Amino acid sequence: MEVLVPFSADRPKSRLADALSPSERATFARTMLADVLAAIDRAGGDPHVLATDEFDPSDGPVAGGPSPPVTVDDRPLTDAVNAVLAERRPGGEGDPLAVVMADLALATPAAFDRLFAGHAGGDGRDRSGAPDVSIVPGRGGGTNALVVSHPRFRVDYHGASYLDHRRIADEVGATVRTVDSHRLATDVDERSDLAELLIHGDGAAAAWLREAGFSLDADGGRVGVVRE
Amino acid sequence: MEVLVPFSADRPKSRLADALSPSERATFARTMLADVLAAIDRAGGDPHVLATDEFDPSDGPVAGGPSPPVTVDDRPLTDAVNAVLAERRPGGEGDPLAVVMADLALATPAAFDRLFAGHAGGDGRDRSGAPDVSIVPGRGGGTNALVVSHPRFRVDYHGASYLDHRRIADEVGATVRTVDSHRLATDVDERSDLAELLIHGDGAAAAWLREAGFSLDADGGRVGVVRE
Repeated sequence: MEVLVPFSADRPKSRLADALSPSERATFARTMLADVLAAIDRAGGDPHVLATDEFDPSDGPVAGGPSPPVTVDDRPLTDAVNAVLAERRPGGEGDPLAVVMADLALATPAAFDRLFAGHAGGDGRDRSGAPDVSIVPGRGGGTNALVVSHPRFRVDYHGASYLDHRRIADEVGATVRTVDSHRLATDVDERSDLAELLIHGDGAAAAWLREAGFSLDADGGRVGVVRE
Repeated sequence: MEVLVPFSADRPKSRLADALSPSERATFARTMLADVLAAIDRAGGDPHVLATDEFDPSDGPVAGGPSPPVTVDDRPLTDAVNAVLAERRPGGEGDPLAVVMADLALATPAAFDRLFAGHAGGDGRDRSGAPDVSIVPGRGGGTNALVVSHPRFRVDYHGASYLDHRRIADEVGATVRTVDSHRLATDVDERSDLAELLIHGDGAAAAWLREAGFSLDADGGRVGVVRE
């Protein structure tokens, strides 16, 4: 299955400004992308980076991972993804298409297996009983990953996009399955998300974070992070 | 499967003090408990409330739900749960025992099905290849639900208990499976968790919250809540 991975190459991870410097944020974002691409690859997906700016995935902080094709589109995320959906017509003439955020650093092949299941019908036509759209809600109402097998479904990533995507699916008559995964619900956006990565991550991004001096801070209710 | 549901009957949900009054917190906690008990029941589990104080589950804000047995134990959570584990010896002489937090208001029967799967071996002995302990990590490193099929496993709910429970399982030679669920990872503890309940909940607790005037606030990054 083709898996589109939107990536902000120019101004990544601004909401981590209280934890990391601009150059650290750029490196960290590239490292998370490498982890996501590797997990997609190991789950049998074919990643395809949709970047806001030119960059070379093989010239990143992690050596030896997948080196997928990159398409540059500097429009806002929603427009860029919808352009691909309009061109590919997944579930119509085209195969199913997945869209996976680049900051799902807790993602594992097993989690992606659960997301891709039921959509892997080859030509997108032999799928009786399968959902037209699978959605992984992110924490806070976002949409962290999608699989689209319906030619008229479109995305709208603004605001509480999980609820919008359910509504849009309804409007075009597409059936929806929600995939219940803490790993895929956790996009690493804010300082508190770093704790999740230190607890559950075993990829390059978690290693980079530990190397940068972060560790768990178990005082108080939920565990946070401290930097030495 | 017997499912132990610890419930703080005396001072519930203190970390929601910035959103709800003390009497509202008590009602909200009872309503979440009713939702959790109903989901366990519909997944085929037999709930058993482990309360810090006397109370009558049938005299709650939600009518018509399961009315499980209640055991009162005013010791700290860890001691009270370990006393039951020592008595029942799940996976030894006893059947598997689940421990599920009372504030998992996003829980569904399907999510509990995934948790209970592999442990439902009747007498706890015919379980070749099944895990000895299944753990659902909560956000921030907690342990939101467990199934124990090993007579020497004990809990320690202090701090980053998910990592502690993995270590304890290692020490007693118990195999561990982690269950990846956003619904079960979301314990409703803090104001930001209320947004998850409004987005995903369809039980009595979500209805109570809407009735109390809460709605989603989609300004900014992740969606929060406002109260009218």
